[in-house]
Amino acid sequence: MSEYIDQNQTGASAGIVEKQFFTFAESPGGLKLESGARLSPVTIAYETCGSLNSDKTNVILILHALSGDSHMAGYYSPKDAKPGWWDIMVGPGKGIDTDRYFVICSNIISSCAGSTGPASINTETDKPYGTDFPLITIGDMVEAQKALIDHFEIKSLLSVIGGSIGGMQVLEWCSRYPDSVKSAIPLATTTRHSALAIAFNEVARQAIMADPNWNDGHYYSAKKPDMGLAIARMIGHITYLSDESMRLKFGRKLQNRSALSFEFGAEFQVESYLQYQGKKFIERFDANSFLYITKAADYFDLAGQYGSGSLVKAFSKCKSKFLVVSYTSDWLYPTYQSKEMVKAMKKNNLDVSFCEIDAQWGHDAFLLPNDRLDNLIKGFLRNASNE
Amino acid sequence: MSEYIDQNQTGASAGIVEKQFFTFAESPGGLKLESGARLSPVTIAYETCGSLNSDKTNVILILHALSGDSHMAGYYSPKDAKPGWWDIMVGPGKGIDTDRYFVICSNIISSCAGSTGPASINTETDKPYGTDFPLITIGDMVEAQKALIDHFEIKSLLSVIGGSIGGMQVLEWCSRYPDSVKSAIPLATTTRHSALAIAFNEVARQAIMADPNWNDGHYYSAKKPDMGLAIARMIGHITYLSDESMRLKFGRKLQNRSALSFEFGAEFQVESYLQYQGKKFIERFDANSFLYITKAADYFDLAGQYGSGSLVKAFSKCKSKFLVVSYTSDWLYPTYQSKEMVKAMKKNNLDVSFCEIDAQWGHDAFLLPNDRLDNLIKGFLRNASNE
Repeated sequence: MSEYIDQNQTGASAGIVEKQFFTFAESPGGLKLESGARLSPVTIAYETCGSLNSDKTNVILILHALSGDSHMAGYYSPKDAKPGWWDIMVGPGKGIDTDRYFVICSNIISSCAGSTGPASINTETDKPYGTDFPLITIGDMVEAQKALIDHFEIKSLLSVIGGSIGGMQVLEWCSRYPDSVKSAIPLATTTRHSALAIAFNEVARQAIMADPNWNDGHYYSAKKPDMGLAIARMIGHITYLSDESMRLKFGRKLQNRSALSFEFGAEFQVESYLQYQGKKFIERFDANSFLYITKAADYFDLAGQYGSGSLVKAFSKCKSKFLVVSYTSDWLYPTYQSKEMVKAMKKNNLDVSFCEIDAQWGHDAFLLPNDRLDNLIKGFLRNASNE
Repeated sequence: MSEYIDQNQTGASAGIVEKQFFTFAESPGGLKLESGARLSPVTIAYETCGSLNSDKTNVILILHALSGDSHMAGYYSPKDAKPGWWDIMVGPGKGIDTDRYFVICSNIISSCAGSTGPASINTETDKPYGTDFPLITIGDMVEAQKALIDHFEIKSLLSVIGGSIGGMQVLEWCSRYPDSVKSAIPLATTTRHSALAIAFNEVARQAIMADPNWNDGHYYSAKKPDMGLAIARMIGHITYLSDESMRLKFGRKLQNRSALSFEFGAEFQVESYLQYQGKKFIERFDANSFLYITKAADYFDLAGQYGSGSLVKAFSKCKSKFLVVSYTSDWLYPTYQSKEMVKAMKKNNLDVSFCEIDAQWGHDAFLLPNDRLDNLIKGFLRNASNE
């Protein structure tokens, strides 16, 4: 992988960005979903950084994970306390260099940051969908992204890049639209959700649905199922970390006390951290979106969808060059799952690079600063754009 | 370890057993707990199998885990559908041979199967304690067990044996009463709860406390926080299994359907399994007991308690011979934690045997039939009783 090493770690902010919207499928019929249901109209919130070149060959599509949104980099306003969720990676001179590439990130459908989801108004009832929103799949998310790309009249994407559920969308893009994806970077992801991953998601969903405020998902004009969503987020956070990272970050350190106080409450720092993460999440996320997106992840099974059960067959139509990245301490989508996909790609003679990054921060590692990842992505993209 | 191998895997049922009760600490003052609080009176539910020999040197104390009870083996009635929780191990000719040993198992205090706990009547109010029950520790559980052993006028235990939270009690016994424990078998356990283990327990507790029926723990004359307890149990069950065992047991198999039905509900077998485990648990367990016992586990830190932070020092007064057992796929109390304790034991020149059993069933493996464990325990106990 030495060809990809680049020591230039400097990079500037993507600056001020603006959330934009694209609405399609307004006609009768709307967007046909994998479940057979139809969704109409469909709005996609998206943001772009960098400039589209004249032949539209410098486009990178970034695909976000469960709780992400279109705000990948930069600031909406100079007053913003924090930049977009992948600002460490996206910007002038950064791993995904916006001086070179036109970078698009759109909010997945069923989410709650501008794209159509369960909190959107159902035009048939003039009320929020709630759980009348149809179940969606990773394929449906990609279908909506394809409509946005078509709207830009972009024929081929230089690269599709994403981690976790974003990585599932990367794999789906390569199988669903093999002629539209020149290269792909699935990070910390899997070709199909394991029983363990489904189990965690199901318990998190049960926590939401057990909240007395959930009301079968029709809570938009009343109290929200905040406690349930907070617990769901706490479960998620445990799976994003690792035994090692939690030991290093928290160990058995106590929270604001020098000795055990023998009470129920956050005595240990790790308890306080989880409670804080839960509370912070309910301010920005919709519980129904959590239900829908986790379900889409659970449904994800590339071999089942494109290979009649065979992962090798699932990649048989792919034409993309791949950079697959896993993390040593990621136990949600462990390295053996990435190796399985790499093996299947190689059996199809695809051009694939694989890197397991030694990181102690668990599944979340793909969102944290990492020179190695910056350099890998930078080199891989230059290589892909020079071909 | 070859000296411990014994091919005799036959064994009979312990037969009909009876739950008995021992009450102590009735005097003013009662049992002083580590928190400083006092508990009075204290009742211990216990069961025995086998016969106490004349010099009382054949006594084995079995210590149960979170959801266990005193019913380790045999049946209460010939009509019982199921025997005690460790019937595979305890009985005539079994790993813990009741033809040779007098085996005692008592329900831990704060539990809900006969020993004093939050559902017990507080004699000061004539109502169930609820969360007025004092927080207890693994040390407090052992203190109550010691009172029972003293009641039997047993000076020394041939062995103390337990897995998971039962294993913590084993370690506590050896440090707290070094002269009373001839040998000890801590299984699938740890000398201190990791941040990861605390995190899972805390989220499970939050699920219970978020249940609208929880009512600050005072629910005994109303609806119980069943949904919260079911979710807590589901979280627990995930940690008792492993990625591998869930893949083998469930994979992505669907529950009673041939295709996805695109609905929230148990579409996958693993979801159905977890929901079933949750529902089954609420029929037999008290939510407050879950809170108290998990908290006791989180508090457990042998080095902090007995070694001023040093695990080597924590074992310095121990005199027991040890058989430490871990399981390859146990990610709740992984093998490295058992190795740490073995290392600390060895630094104190203790006689310790260690075995990591190759098992795919995760933390729960210690409760499942395993010839290797039977033979290890049988050999170790014969060795200990012959010394």
